[in-house]
Amino acid sequence: MRIDGAPYRSVWVDQDDGWSVRIIDQTKLPWALEVLRLTDVAAAAHAIRSMQVRGAPLIGAVAAYGVALALHADPSSDAMERDAAMLVETRPTAVNLRWAVERMLTRLRNTQVAERARVAYAEAAVIADEDTAQCAAIGEHGRVLIEGAARAKPGHRVNVLTHCNAGWLATVDWGTALAPVYKAHDAGIDLHVWVDETRPRNQGAALTAWELGKHGVPHTVVSDNAGGHLMQHEAVDLVIVGADRVTRAGDAANKIGTYLKALAAKDNGVPFWVAFPSTTIDWTVADGVADIPIEERASTEVTTITGRDSNGAVVTVQVTPDGSTAANPAFDVTPSRLVTGLITERGRCAATVEGLLALFPERV
Amino acid sequence: MRIDGAPYRSVWVDQDDGWSVRIIDQTKLPWALEVLRLTDVAAAAHAIRSMQVRGAPLIGAVAAYGVALALHADPSSDAMERDAAMLVETRPTAVNLRWAVERMLTRLRNTQVAERARVAYAEAAVIADEDTAQCAAIGEHGRVLIEGAARAKPGHRVNVLTHCNAGWLATVDWGTALAPVYKAHDAGIDLHVWVDETRPRNQGAALTAWELGKHGVPHTVVSDNAGGHLMQHEAVDLVIVGADRVTRAGDAANKIGTYLKALAAKDNGVPFWVAFPSTTIDWTVADGVADIPIEERASTEVTTITGRDSNGAVVTVQVTPDGSTAANPAFDVTPSRLVTGLITERGRCAATVEGLLALFPERV
Repeated sequence: MRIDGAPYRSVWVDQDDGWSVRIIDQTKLPWALEVLRLTDVAAAAHAIRSMQVRGAPLIGAVAAYGVALALHADPSSDAMERDAAMLVETRPTAVNLRWAVERMLTRLRNTQVAERARVAYAEAAVIADEDTAQCAAIGEHGRVLIEGAARAKPGHRVNVLTHCNAGWLATVDWGTALAPVYKAHDAGIDLHVWVDETRPRNQGAALTAWELGKHGVPHTVVSDNAGGHLMQHEAVDLVIVGADRVTRAGDAANKIGTYLKALAAKDNGVPFWVAFPSTTIDWTVADGVADIPIEERASTEVTTITGRDSNGAVVTVQVTPDGSTAANPAFDVTPSRLVTGLITERGRCAATVEGLLALFPERV
Repeated sequence: MRIDGAPYRSVWVDQDDGWSVRIIDQTKLPWALEVLRLTDVAAAAHAIRSMQVRGAPLIGAVAAYGVALALHADPSSDAMERDAAMLVETRPTAVNLRWAVERMLTRLRNTQVAERARVAYAEAAVIADEDTAQCAAIGEHGRVLIEGAARAKPGHRVNVLTHCNAGWLATVDWGTALAPVYKAHDAGIDLHVWVDETRPRNQGAALTAWELGKHGVPHTVVSDNAGGHLMQHEAVDLVIVGADRVTRAGDAANKIGTYLKALAAKDNGVPFWVAFPSTTIDWTVADGVADIPIEERASTEVTTITGRDSNGAVVTVQVTPDGSTAANPAFDVTPSRLVTGLITERGRCAATVEGLLALFPERV
């Protein structure tokens, strides 16, 4: 997508040297746009571990380029296997990370040593392009929904509410939940996005607001508490969120608080859509509330907030009393009964076993 | 209630001089306990305007003492009427503020000038004591619910979830939503409170966590997003919230985000109670969602957060990108169909016209 008019992806190979890897340091957003140059696999691993890059699809792409950087330095099989294992360990629970590294290894183990670096860059580029194509397809399938909402209220702006960041910063380009927004905006539809702040890590306030603003999409940040009130007063036409894991029955694990917005959408007759690539589907699980384990993250994410002070310095402040503890479940599960439908790269479907199997018949 | 073992109210007359008024500066919480000495009506007005004191019942009591301070300086009728009008203007929409000042004037207009200061202090003390008695009664009627939850799970701690601050800091003592918690805790019931952070002003993280901690009540702060997940996993036995305005039909306007918790409670079979003194009831309104106007507060409450940095300084930081705007509806309305019941100083009732009229037959 665009930053102040210039096209960007969230990871790319440096145009000048043809081998180093560029990323946007997302820990600096929204206060500064810092493009980092990764010149070895250790830097790629650090970028993933320190969340300079985040979002399952982007982590996978950066890991693939990390393998390429490793082979650029040392194409031997020993080094390749060692560096690949090191990359996988950076975030052990990230499914896309493991998937991308395994795909690279499968391609490279049967490649002559002298060819490996070239093949690795080519394969990483394919992974990045495939992710972009998938997200663009999600965008097209979701754009139709926004167009429908626009047709239903001619002369009025369409209001979309989203939670957390499932935008292009979480993928290589386009995003998942935000892909329909960008597609509709670029097609000239008059739309506006309510951006949930998304405490405790504030991905909405920091990342979604930033990327929408830089691309020129009208938006307004609200506290996570506000969405129900907005829906009660017909200020939301549809909700689109991403997902970290979707069950075969259509239950969606996503950032903590998503479930509350789904309840409010149901209560007010607002369509609630979940957008994700099919790699997000866990075909082994049906009941998400019972069977998806929820990561409990550090309490300091709740007890502190990072922002920019009046001198321009980025500082972390404590917002709770000394002695008060905090709990921090990072995700919740929205039961499929609250989900209007799912948006995947193959199209839209009902949030049911039957709906998903109709789109993915090879899983029957 | 207690602060580290010592009994406190949120407003009191100085013991040494017998006329100046003491308050806790709530804008300094939770980082510092600063007791202010108000020596004139201007200081009382400033305390209300700058939210050094907040919460409808406490504002009313401080305004009453503000009238007393005014008469301590100048008991003439002209000064009294002028100062009273100035106090009412500090927060024009605060119903309790106007009520308390009118009550003082009614009592004082027929009092001899030489007697006015003495009578004013006495009347302000009655207002404060009446509020305390009302809150204590709410506490007793709500304690029964917590005891019931304790009996239903012998050997296990009762978990109460609350939103915003409806504790003793919002009243003269005991609080409304927290009065049952204090009564149950003081009666030896093993309980624990989930404290919603309550963005954007963080009254939960800053005030509720502080007052519970100082009184010794076990509690855990969570982001506003977490409550639905907690209820899905049976970590909440009951929800108790306060209210800013309750309709004759039992709809409850309260801090933004309350409605989302009520939806989650309903979806998970968790009892959802609203606690308030009967002065909160607006007998002229039935449909709260349609007819209660919702205050839109400054967007800076969403775009910034105040906390304590690593040097101990209290600083305000910006959490949104430059150029992103924010909306800030301060309250939402929970429809009575989501409310298990109401807790008032006269007892508990269903959130219906019939339920309220049974408790308040004089309103039939």
